[in-house]
Amino acid sequence: MQAELLIHASWILPVDATDSQLDDHAIAVSEGRIQAVLPSSEARASIEAQRVVELPEHVIVPGLINAHTHAAMSLMRGLADDLPLMTWLHEHIWPTEQRWVDPTFVADGTRLAVLEMLRGGVTCYNDMYFHPEVSAQVTAEAGMRAVVGMLVIDFPSSYAVDADGYITKGLALHEQYRDHPLIRVAFAPHSPYTVSDAPLTRVRTLADQLGIPIHIHVHETRDEVVQSLRDHGQRPFARLDGLGFLDPAVLAIHMTQLEDDEIERLAATGTHVVHCPESNLKLASGFCPVAKLLDAGVNVALGTDSAASNNDLNMLGEMRTAALLAKSISGSAAAVPASAALRMATINGARALGLDEEIGSLEPGKAADIVALDLGDAHTQPVYHPISQLVYAASSSQVRQVWINGRQVLRDATPTQIDIADTLSRARDWGKRLAASD
Amino acid sequence: MQAELLIHASWILPVDATDSQLDDHAIAVSEGRIQAVLPSSEARASIEAQRVVELPEHVIVPGLINAHTHAAMSLMRGLADDLPLMTWLHEHIWPTEQRWVDPTFVADGTRLAVLEMLRGGVTCYNDMYFHPEVSAQVTAEAGMRAVVGMLVIDFPSSYAVDADGYITKGLALHEQYRDHPLIRVAFAPHSPYTVSDAPLTRVRTLADQLGIPIHIHVHETRDEVVQSLRDHGQRPFARLDGLGFLDPAVLAIHMTQLEDDEIERLAATGTHVVHCPESNLKLASGFCPVAKLLDAGVNVALGTDSAASNNDLNMLGEMRTAALLAKSISGSAAAVPASAALRMATINGARALGLDEEIGSLEPGKAADIVALDLGDAHTQPVYHPISQLVYAASSSQVRQVWINGRQVLRDATPTQIDIADTLSRARDWGKRLAASD
Repeated sequence: MQAELLIHASWILPVDATDSQLDDHAIAVSEGRIQAVLPSSEARASIEAQRVVELPEHVIVPGLINAHTHAAMSLMRGLADDLPLMTWLHEHIWPTEQRWVDPTFVADGTRLAVLEMLRGGVTCYNDMYFHPEVSAQVTAEAGMRAVVGMLVIDFPSSYAVDADGYITKGLALHEQYRDHPLIRVAFAPHSPYTVSDAPLTRVRTLADQLGIPIHIHVHETRDEVVQSLRDHGQRPFARLDGLGFLDPAVLAIHMTQLEDDEIERLAATGTHVVHCPESNLKLASGFCPVAKLLDAGVNVALGTDSAASNNDLNMLGEMRTAALLAKSISGSAAAVPASAALRMATINGARALGLDEEIGSLEPGKAADIVALDLGDAHTQPVYHPISQLVYAASSSQVRQVWINGRQVLRDATPTQIDIADTLSRARDWGKRLAASD
Repeated sequence: MQAELLIHASWILPVDATDSQLDDHAIAVSEGRIQAVLPSSEARASIEAQRVVELPEHVIVPGLINAHTHAAMSLMRGLADDLPLMTWLHEHIWPTEQRWVDPTFVADGTRLAVLEMLRGGVTCYNDMYFHPEVSAQVTAEAGMRAVVGMLVIDFPSSYAVDADGYITKGLALHEQYRDHPLIRVAFAPHSPYTVSDAPLTRVRTLADQLGIPIHIHVHETRDEVVQSLRDHGQRPFARLDGLGFLDPAVLAIHMTQLEDDEIERLAATGTHVVHCPESNLKLASGFCPVAKLLDAGVNVALGTDSAASNNDLNMLGEMRTAALLAKSISGSAAAVPASAALRMATINGARALGLDEEIGSLEPGKAADIVALDLGDAHTQPVYHPISQLVYAASSSQVRQVWINGRQVLRDATPTQIDIADTLSRARDWGKRLAASD
């Protein structure tokens, strides 16, 4: 067999149906797709490859999928911490956004985020922010995959003046990226408390017509539920249910407030949940009942949320926090084992985004979105179970090689398509500007 | 003024009484001690130094203090995860220890742990394990500081046959390390459920006579409390109180089960608590009420516990988890701000170990235990508040330079006193042996 690329590693975790661990295996890649995953000895005998990469002591996993973030907000990383949610939003984040967010801000912030995510083994992210056409362009230039949100919110911004304006811009974006190899779009109505019924209904109809996902914050905090009971006489979950927002096209982000019947309803409707543990912890938003959701059969993906409330976009850390927190919240050290955390960060994210035929696992026919980590460092030795070192001990500095659609976008921990010095210099300049106005 | 060493950095967080942030400052060091912390401009004009180190974009902090670990257990990192506590202990950890722990295991495991900790900016750790004389020697050879535990437990091991045997060995260790510049000892009775009243009483008396701390696991899990109520008719806390175990010499580790009156009693007696959030999360042990303890005036330090239940010895990660978890458990995003987390990982640890005259902050007269992190990476940019980047975003790979007692033990992220290849090779060999017997 011929292959363009053949990658050998000590361990491959393909995230297949049985959570296999493949020792001394290789992946053959051609035309951006995985051709085969097979024992290295067989590969050496049977495959003639244009390029061979040997990765001893490395573990290979599918590219990580950050299923919820606001990438450009990386420019506000650490601007304000340790504040009650409403003080943080009203006195720091929103005024800063009002003052500064424009296409240049979004380009520079997204590039910083893409740099961080690629270095951390993230190959695809699901974004929600202003000026998504800019995020899309920056991400595609870096060779990275994203689902950019067609933001919808009742309030005006530098991007659009009202909900219809957002939708119009979103539809143009959808048209622009039709059939793009790396960029997809999703509707991103911000939340039940910032989008009224009419635009939500319109989003639902358009999403069905276009066959694209809907990405929305739901039940992030108890206050959100209390406020909805006051304003709408029902919980946001019930209101969204009434508007037809529970089905496999919908990604419900956060979900820290859930009754048992709501969990059943999520499972019955095939609605996806995206868990953002570090942001929920940092903002004291509450605890998403991940173990219960998984037990009920709900598909739970994983996201970092923005760097303003995390404060990084590190999906290795997020997997770890998700696994640890689920154990303590459920009261069982056996809950959310390492393999479940890795599924949440890969195939479950792909499924939530409607991309599970394309990415999320290392199987023949899928896109070659491949991440290799070197487990040779002291803090991941010795290796009894590579998945344990990956989830419970590895750091993003151990991510050495990343391919997306078969193209190498990180080589020896250095992005191949990003001007690093320029990206960091622009981030520093924004930092000075924002600090002066905060 | 003359100095042996002058270190300039963009930011210094000395962890002084007012949690200062010093921009463009320098630290002068001679004979292992901090001589002065002053503006770089003044230092350049007034100090003649034998060696000058320039660290732009770096933040300097006091050496981190890991206030509870079992260093040699790094060889069991990831041996068994995602199991209920009793299955984990009875079927994996204890049989492995019974079969394998000897002085060579402790030497090789401690060296792996020391390598990891130095790379992560830890300059001092408080240890509890078998064969502490071996840990002490390995640590001193690496130029690192430790408080090694004079372990006391009712059960026999390769180290001693009964509680009196452990105490006898401990006293010899104490004698051996009297006046050592890096190594101190503490009594380390394992826990109320593994040490009976007679040896606990003897430990208390000896600790008073020798003026050394007592390091003990207390209220790690609810089961421990239930069992004590059954066996002793009282909670472990009350039993220890009756034995005189509440005072400023005592470090109570874990404390996930605490009633309000117990918190008051801890504060009134000056007993220290060591919080190990990641281990408590991973073993589903419960939540230490850190915000309440700090509000009550209890000194709370921070530890990683062992790499078998964490699975790393990364105090940067532990600070972050402590800060995030305290917010969500207390329900306030303002609880345990970054500055409190840094205090827990430095001066509070020093205070708990009775070493706060010597280490834990960067102030003239104290030992020069100094850590410098490079914040130039994408995931810590831009820098609004260096303490925020340190606690909420930095990774151990950003630790570049470490000095202990003024001696450089990490240079450009590489330990100067440890044979890295040999340390990792030994860890791999142990991994093969333990895997074959698990």
